[in-house]
Amino acid sequence: MVKTSSLVHFCFISCLVLFIFAGSWYPPSNSSWADNSKQTTWCTFKNRIFSNSKACSVLDAQVQKPIDHAAEIPHHPLDPLTAQEINCVRTILSTYEPFSSTFPIIHSLMLDEPDKLQVLRWTKGDPFPPRKADVLAMLNGQSHVLTVDLDSRRVTSHAINPRSGYPMLSVEDIKAASKVPFSNAEFNKSIAARGISLSELICLTPSAGWFGPNEEGKRVTKVLCYSNQGTPNFYMRPIEGLVMTVDLDTLEVLKFSDTGRGIPIPKSTNTDYRYKAHGKEPEMEPLNPISMEQPKGPSFRVEDGHIVKWANWVFHLKADERAGLVISRAMVRDSENGELRNVMYKGFSSELFVPYMDLEESWYFKSFMDAGEFGLGMSALPLVPLNDCPRYSYYMDGVFAASNGKPYVQPNMICLFERYAGDIGWRHSETQLHDFQIRETRPKVTLVARMAATVGNYDYIFDWEFQTDGLIRIKVGLSGMLMVKGSPYNSLYQVPNQDVMSGPLISENVIGVVHDHFITFHLDMDIDGANNSFADVKLVKEHGLPGESPRKSYLRVQRKVAKTEKDARIKLKLYDPSEFHMINPSRRSRLGNPTGYKIVPGGTAASLLDHDDPPQLRSAFTNNQIWVTLYNKSEQWAGGVLVYQSRGDDTLAVWSERDRPIENKDIVLWYTLGFHHIPCQEDFPVMPVVTSSFELKPVNFFESNPILRAAPAFEKDLPVCRPSAS
Amino acid sequence: MVKTSSLVHFCFISCLVLFIFAGSWYPPSNSSWADNSKQTTWCTFKNRIFSNSKACSVLDAQVQKPIDHAAEIPHHPLDPLTAQEINCVRTILSTYEPFSSTFPIIHSLMLDEPDKLQVLRWTKGDPFPPRKADVLAMLNGQSHVLTVDLDSRRVTSHAINPRSGYPMLSVEDIKAASKVPFSNAEFNKSIAARGISLSELICLTPSAGWFGPNEEGKRVTKVLCYSNQGTPNFYMRPIEGLVMTVDLDTLEVLKFSDTGRGIPIPKSTNTDYRYKAHGKEPEMEPLNPISMEQPKGPSFRVEDGHIVKWANWVFHLKADERAGLVISRAMVRDSENGELRNVMYKGFSSELFVPYMDLEESWYFKSFMDAGEFGLGMSALPLVPLNDCPRYSYYMDGVFAASNGKPYVQPNMICLFERYAGDIGWRHSETQLHDFQIRETRPKVTLVARMAATVGNYDYIFDWEFQTDGLIRIKVGLSGMLMVKGSPYNSLYQVPNQDVMSGPLISENVIGVVHDHFITFHLDMDIDGANNSFADVKLVKEHGLPGESPRKSYLRVQRKVAKTEKDARIKLKLYDPSEFHMINPSRRSRLGNPTGYKIVPGGTAASLLDHDDPPQLRSAFTNNQIWVTLYNKSEQWAGGVLVYQSRGDDTLAVWSERDRPIENKDIVLWYTLGFHHIPCQEDFPVMPVVTSSFELKPVNFFESNPILRAAPAFEKDLPVCRPSAS
Repeated sequence: MVKTSSLVHFCFISCLVLFIFAGSWYPPSNSSWADNSKQTTWCTFKNRIFSNSKACSVLDAQVQKPIDHAAEIPHHPLDPLTAQEINCVRTILSTYEPFSSTFPIIHSLMLDEPDKLQVLRWTKGDPFPPRKADVLAMLNGQSHVLTVDLDSRRVTSHAINPRSGYPMLSVEDIKAASKVPFSNAEFNKSIAARGISLSELICLTPSAGWFGPNEEGKRVTKVLCYSNQGTPNFYMRPIEGLVMTVDLDTLEVLKFSDTGRGIPIPKSTNTDYRYKAHGKEPEMEPLNPISMEQPKGPSFRVEDGHIVKWANWVFHLKADERAGLVISRAMVRDSENGELRNVMYKGFSSELFVPYMDLEESWYFKSFMDAGEFGLGMSALPLVPLNDCPRYSYYMDGVFAASNGKPYVQPNMICLFERYAGDIGWRHSETQLHDFQIRETRPKVTLVARMAATVGNYDYIFDWEFQTDGLIRIKVGLSGMLMVKGSPYNSLYQVPNQDVMSGPLISENVIGVVHDHFITFHLDMDIDGANNSFADVKLVKEHGLPGESPRKSYLRVQRKVAKTEKDARIKLKLYDPSEFHMINPSRRSRLGNPTGYKIVPGGTAASLLDHDDPPQLRSAFTNNQIWVTLYNKSEQWAGGVLVYQSRGDDTLAVWSERDRPIENKDIVLWYTLGFHHIPCQEDFPVMPVVTSSFELKPVNFFESNPILRAAPAFEKDLPVCRPSAS
Repeated sequence: MVKTSSLVHFCFISCLVLFIFAGSWYPPSNSSWADNSKQTTWCTFKNRIFSNSKACSVLDAQVQKPIDHAAEIPHHPLDPLTAQEINCVRTILSTYEPFSSTFPIIHSLMLDEPDKLQVLRWTKGDPFPPRKADVLAMLNGQSHVLTVDLDSRRVTSHAINPRSGYPMLSVEDIKAASKVPFSNAEFNKSIAARGISLSELICLTPSAGWFGPNEEGKRVTKVLCYSNQGTPNFYMRPIEGLVMTVDLDTLEVLKFSDTGRGIPIPKSTNTDYRYKAHGKEPEMEPLNPISMEQPKGPSFRVEDGHIVKWANWVFHLKADERAGLVISRAMVRDSENGELRNVMYKGFSSELFVPYMDLEESWYFKSFMDAGEFGLGMSALPLVPLNDCPRYSYYMDGVFAASNGKPYVQPNMICLFERYAGDIGWRHSETQLHDFQIRETRPKVTLVARMAATVGNYDYIFDWEFQTDGLIRIKVGLSGMLMVKGSPYNSLYQVPNQDVMSGPLISENVIGVVHDHFITFHLDMDIDGANNSFADVKLVKEHGLPGESPRKSYLRVQRKVAKTEKDARIKLKLYDPSEFHMINPSRRSRLGNPTGYKIVPGGTAASLLDHDDPPQLRSAFTNNQIWVTLYNKSEQWAGGVLVYQSRGDDTLAVWSERDRPIENKDIVLWYTLGFHHIPCQEDFPVMPVVTSSFELKPVNFFESNPILRAAPAFEKDLPVCRPSAS
């Protein structure tokens, strides 16, 4: 180990020259650092950024400048790689022998987190464990998986094509492949035959999936096109049935298919969703302004860029190019004795699986794995202040590596805000029957960390909500555009056989194809320490002995601690109910109950596809709703490290098959939240948000209700507001 | 029919003398009208009541006085009976022959709603359909079910003991029965032997359930006692094993059982939940004030006392002594053409079922049916401003009849507020890949109607949340106190066999007995009119033909419209998924889809008890999660009209057994929301709120996303706030 300061110094000096010559941030998008600096109405309060220029005047004395990512240094072993460090990695790789003549395309470049034990032992002021980078790169059609040690400035591990599958697509992959059709003769002919102009086309690159052994050896994508004539919402105007298979490395068209010539392109009418495009207000009474107000500012602090402190919670929050948002080292303070207690070492959305339900040539392959194929963080565009996140939100940027290995900033990628929604923390009243009256209620105030990933058409909103009673709620919201299918039919009355349609007609010539969404979360719970057990706390029906009681049946709690990974494969059953506890068998409450957290599923859906159907094989992590695995630093991504065109040989299901012992071990909980989506007219042209959630909830973790002594709200403490001057 | 004004005039004159002589409101509790008038810091804005004296000054010009219930007249056929009308009913009953010598005990006195057709035809200014009252009364141990016509001043129907079961308990029943132990010799002896003083006892009257034919013919309750020494939270200090069966009419002790002499009363330590009782703050950083602010006031109006208008919604809202909160005539305005369209004729919580899982003598009977046995409205104490409901809430009172037939006011029983929780209505961003940039997001603002019933130990919070996209979310929150069992054990280490405990040890000598909660909602959906059908929209797995596609399996939509009631008995299955649509087969969208709403279950639980176990027989409405029945005005209460000691002969399950045709008929949807509750330490001494919810969601009801053209939030419109002067 080296001292933090010396490491940073060393790396800074060694990379500075390169950095200066690089001249400016590499922007892969319009959402670059340059853009962020234009937001002149922004101001910060300590480390909080307000979107409200008026707030600035109030808090003027405390205004700070935005974070200077170019000068950023890590403060915690889990902090993401800084811009300097990314440049450092690039320098190291550029002088690494296999890449010295041709620099590879960087598909992913992230912190290789130190071993858990090193992180747990580390406290502020300690020397850092070595800073390392995990790199996924492509060169000459081969996948390179590398570890780069920033300290020794060496590549410390390097594997070529270690498994099936490739890294997530690079922006260059997508840009290049989406241009291929324009120079393809067959495509041009087909487009001309349809009477479409090339200038109105927007082509997308949905991943090709993997459908058996004859799809190996080449990195391919599908290319589909849409018309943006008359609307920015091209998703609603598919050129149906026209699909190409394109080699991502050679940019050759491997297969051309056109089966949709008779299908008109749906009209652009009523598809534009931009506010500025609307001529009239909807038919509803206008709403008066409403806002969550905190004139004294929010109650949380963000220290050293990533450590969030709020009420009784402390956790590390960071942007991640693949997972989007990562919560680490979540600890809650015991409300009785002040002890800061471990709850979760790391939590994040590990993989998404989105299979569509249509077997046709231009549809069958649509079985997306968005985290591993496209990157949730890569897809997370800046959040819109006041609309994506309320006033008084704090915004956190992502700093990622572009395909050329240079750092860039994904601004305002995560927001953090305090929430009061009029909900109740606990309450009780007494009552007309006694000679005393009690009216005790506590309002519920929570803290939310939010990220929204726009993976092509779909928008996924991820909320991690922390409550003072120790509960963590993880909520996923779906919005954006459907992936729709062109249809020859204007109305259902024309359809000879609705049974062969792969979804409902949701507008003229538009079918909303039925599909599922599964979001699998990696939840490395470390309740009061790393070694935990998983208990299936069943409710089983029992019967009294004859004559024992007038009551015949009852439920009894039956606890079963999982011995091995296979014991902890759970399919939820309404009529065979359980609670699922992560417990620390070595730490007991005053009464002797093991301390624990339970996972509380909410509404969900299961994948029904055949286990040997290729998309399901690759996403076999959705075969159960709950899994528990032995902690293994390399088992983070439920669909494997290399997901693109993977064969399913590196999934959670494969790891679980090893059936390792998991009792009183360092273990990881996995939960899959599912949605079935049968589209409807209301989803056209943009979908109202649909949400579902699950909870991590203390169970015998605290000795008693931890918010028993919380204060009620008093009128005297609340703000005095006037309508805006305008 | 008579003109509204003449009816009111007639009734007013005829009852005025009596009313004046009655002198004052009959207060069955401390929460009487007199109390409400003490709330001098309250002010109203039009018909909105603010709890904020500072708000008054801002809105001073528009301040109105609180509603004068004594002078209230009905404005809508569904308006609850007014104080005058309740007095009127009392007068009529007091001169009705069977009651002329002895006035019966009134257990329930509510509006007998007019026939649906009369209500649907009625528009403002029309004469009212006759105003009628449904009365449940007891006299000489017999149940009387009466209809009183206020117009003709006659009892128009009268049945004595029409079915098994009795009306909900009266406050007099509860008060009288809870005093019985004090004059019982055995009880006194037992208490003395335990070393307890009678003065520290609080006795409760949990309902006795019904356990077979030998429990008929007498109206009985159980009586259990607790010690309130050192704490107002007597629920945590049970005198375990001491239970009496008491005849509610003769107040005789029918059975005395004492099996718990060896069980200590749990200590009062840390059980007091009152803010004023706490000496120290919890160990967490304090939260800055946060508040949903609306300096221009909320956007909803309450017209004529009960008609709520907000954004695109109009509905009738009222307090109900049994259901608590009733939503009627919910209509949503079509955002495109302005048409006000029917969604739901009536929605309310029809019954609760709360079985505990312990067969012992002092526990087996605990299988509560809270709406029919105690009344959710009767149990709904005043909401606490700023804590139960946010600032700018509007509070609605209940006006109910006391046991003597006189009206009383249940003040601030319902609150109505607009909510902004930082959530998103819809969003989409484009993206680094195109030559245009889009950042479109709409904040979500909703309207919530809330009621909280404290049924003894438990608090149930009912939220009906309305969204501008047409969705209605019904949410139930549970808080309050556990019903706990005394135990000889201080810690688990002392317990020889945990398997025989009926729940976990949650404090020293305190067992939290495992139990369930089921809340069954009556949802009379009338989508675009009364005649609807129920469609089970299944997702079934299909396989492609050999060679058809590289993809093997997919899901296909299979619609099945229920012909009869038995077709519409639904048990939810994760691996056999469906959507459940209420559709209007006669009204089609532009595309030909039937207009509809779907019910979207969230997290829930099912009752696992044997169907022939007496509690399950009486609550057989929980045998399925979803039922659909033919509309029948008399089938409102899922457990029957007379629930107390009922035998289950008048439940939803019995009605459904008739198997009436339900296709394209006026039909009612029923949904049961369930919770299994295995208590834990965090539930001691008062439980943090646990919630679950379900949704009613438009599906092909609108032609497209109804909030497409909604405006985003703009900084210039938001309030300017300062911290409170204090």
